Amino acid sequence: MGKDGDLMEKLVSLCKRRGYIFQSSEIYGGTGSVWDYGPLGVELKRNIKESWWRSMVHERDDIEGIDAAILMHPRVWEASGHVEGFTDPLVECKNCHRRFRADEPTVAETGQCPVCGTSDAFGEPRMFNLMFKTFMGAVESQAAVVYLRPETAQGIFVNFQNVLTSSRQRIPFGIAQIGKAFRNEITPGNFTFRTREFEQMEMQYFIHPDEDDEWFEYWKAKRLEWVESLGIRPEKLRFNEHSPDELAHYAKTAFDIEYEFPFGWSEFEGIHNRTDYDLRRHQEFSGKRLEYIDPVDRSKRYIPYVIETSAGADRTTLAVLVDAYREEEVEGETRVVLGLAPHLAPIKAAVFPLVRKDGMPEIARKIHEGFRKEAIPSIYDESGSIGRRYRRQDEAGTPFAITVDGQTTEDDTVTIRNRDTLEQERVAIDQVIGYIRERVG
Amino acid sequence: MGKDGDLMEKLVSLCKRRGYIFQSSEIYGGTGSVWDYGPLGVELKRNIKESWWRSMVHERDDIEGIDAAILMHPRVWEASGHVEGFTDPLVECKNCHRRFRADEPTVAETGQCPVCGTSDAFGEPRMFNLMFKTFMGAVESQAAVVYLRPETAQGIFVNFQNVLTSSRQRIPFGIAQIGKAFRNEITPGNFTFRTREFEQMEMQYFIHPDEDDEWFEYWKAKRLEWVESLGIRPEKLRFNEHSPDELAHYAKTAFDIEYEFPFGWSEFEGIHNRTDYDLRRHQEFSGKRLEYIDPVDRSKRYIPYVIETSAGADRTTLAVLVDAYREEEVEGETRVVLGLAPHLAPIKAAVFPLVRKDGMPEIARKIHEGFRKEAIPSIYDESGSIGRRYRRQDEAGTPFAITVDGQTTEDDTVTIRNRDTLEQERVAIDQVIGYIRERVG
Repeated sequence: MGKDGDLMEKLVSLCKRRGYIFQSSEIYGGTGSVWDYGPLGVELKRNIKESWWRSMVHERDDIEGIDAAILMHPRVWEASGHVEGFTDPLVECKNCHRRFRADEPTVAETGQCPVCGTSDAFGEPRMFNLMFKTFMGAVESQAAVVYLRPETAQGIFVNFQNVLTSSRQRIPFGIAQIGKAFRNEITPGNFTFRTREFEQMEMQYFIHPDEDDEWFEYWKAKRLEWVESLGIRPEKLRFNEHSPDELAHYAKTAFDIEYEFPFGWSEFEGIHNRTDYDLRRHQEFSGKRLEYIDPVDRSKRYIPYVIETSAGADRTTLAVLVDAYREEEVEGETRVVLGLAPHLAPIKAAVFPLVRKDGMPEIARKIHEGFRKEAIPSIYDESGSIGRRYRRQDEAGTPFAITVDGQTTEDDTVTIRNRDTLEQERVAIDQVIGYIRERVG
Repeated sequence: MGKDGDLMEKLVSLCKRRGYIFQSSEIYGGTGSVWDYGPLGVELKRNIKESWWRSMVHERDDIEGIDAAILMHPRVWEASGHVEGFTDPLVECKNCHRRFRADEPTVAETGQCPVCGTSDAFGEPRMFNLMFKTFMGAVESQAAVVYLRPETAQGIFVNFQNVLTSSRQRIPFGIAQIGKAFRNEITPGNFTFRTREFEQMEMQYFIHPDEDDEWFEYWKAKRLEWVESLGIRPEKLRFNEHSPDELAHYAKTAFDIEYEFPFGWSEFEGIHNRTDYDLRRHQEFSGKRLEYIDPVDRSKRYIPYVIETSAGADRTTLAVLVDAYREEEVEGETRVVLGLAPHLAPIKAAVFPLVRKDGMPEIARKIHEGFRKEAIPSIYDESGSIGRRYRRQDEAGTPFAITVDGQTTEDDTVTIRNRDTLEQERVAIDQVIGYIRERVG
């Protein structure tokens, strides 16, 4: 545990040093469990989201994308069951009035306030809703209350008929979305794992109720395949099935994809059979028909079942970062490497002149310019020893480093160093872009 | 005005019909001035944001991207001046208690409540803050108040030192960000033009204070160039300089880029000289030094000036949609065309079998599969007459329609119809992908 705790601390430190993740509003002491993505972090997360969108929307004919707003009609959350049921039990200290989760071990076992130390501090637990609420319009009244969505899924359910009609899809088909959601967690933590503001990558697949088991198995396999395509080690991944008492109110079956984080096996994606719960509730609450009419046999009408795949973009990014982090002994020194899959790495190639003279910087800059023209993210760096520049890029996760040296000026070749194997190959300058492109997919 | 009003109505209708934009929570009667992007809308907006990110971040060495959270430390908004100054004057009707902007002509001139008709209805205006507020943590107290950010810019200012250090940039350099912001507008409207939830594409460029005029001119020209690259007609664009009494509290100079919308010339992007206002205020409020130290001459220390380019992603998307919408007489019928620039169009090519027999569907499907493998968004459609299928794609903005016909089965050629010129070319099947790729850039 000590060693694993170290790993998280080291990762947090690397993320700040190399510009992956910063604490939000750090200059003001930070905002509770909210994080900002820096220059490299934003690119890593973009690459993950892009890979997800490509595999879920662009590479398929049966899934449509949407982008629904965060602010929705408050009735949505009555229909979905969130107003009534999306709650945690809280207790309040009778002395200092701070509140805690009633099921937190220190609170439940000792009955002593962990902040002010009062014993026998708590009364009966009170249910506390996890949705952030705000007021829309000029008057702060109950009628003006709106919520920050606690999940993106409802934006898909309420748009079901509009998407169906405009896209002319037929069942089975899905709707995919990437977007922010908010939960007023009482005990957030573990870096970006549990945060109050987070981004989801969700897909709801609408099917005939008789076919739910078959499609559930299909999506379970598909999603694991995608997670493995991110380069995460398979032995660090497992499925965890929700037992009947763990199931959410809308779910018939639920499997989590878990990663073995330093703080234990934890979920970063779920596959859920939501049945017809959501569409049925929205039909009831809105008075609008949300049935599907089979276009071939119009007497076949039904409310579709939904198989949902719900991934946390921040948690997936964290799993990728944790899995990529390693320390190695090289020539008697420890090097820190972020062994990101090349297609996810923010920078694909670093270009260095060995020394800052003899025309080397000019050649290196030209190679860097060539990458930019081909939209391959690269970086030019001429400062510090070559060893130091390699180390910097190892930490940044850059898979290839290209060095212009004395020989370059003679035969137009450069060395390309592989971040993981440390092998160096000599490659002709006019082959460099092809070489990198082939390997960063 | 009547005709132009019609244009907006027609566009709203097309956007729903073709899956560009839906009213948020429509089945519940809608959420006040909030909109959802449908299957085509999400792709159009993604293409616009992607084009912005490429030109601002990926194609330059001097700009770093970030993605800061929506929820920030509340002190940020004291430092920025938003808690005190981001307000509108409101009046309340003494009879029905509804509130209105005091500067609205009907209210200011008649003094009569536009809802209940009471005359002499209003007292003195009260200042109303436009930030949405919510409570973080379990207790709804003043200490727990946080705001939904009303602009993305502050996420960049508070991360200035972290980005500078981790990226090793030197002044002049910029930080770019795309993200949601929220303003509790009293009178939102004009479709997606003024909404309470919106997405910004902002870049803050940090410079030496002596160079502000020069960089201001540079960014003014650069931004117009990018806007024109979206295919918007130049005669529909103009700059509008803020007069001294229109300038925001932080601005020394400000130019809007305006588009001639059906509801009049209106701003969708601004270029602002924010001076050192924000960094100076954050230095004061946080107690952290936000000076830049010249790495060559370390005695040169200063708080940088900021030239900001701030674009609305939704407004830019709306300008693109309005500008692309046209109706034409073709063979005695009116056709509706969304003449989107090919690089922005959600679908690049539609593939049709002329009839649903003689092997044509199989060939057409194979061409469609070929596009998908090359990550070129395409659609396969075999339903309805060929004329009807063309019209559907004209409305969807698809620049090319490929038809497999009788001749295809003889000589492996297809027709490619150009959405704008209506010309048809015969092209060999194995040239089709190259033909389209060349034209959708």
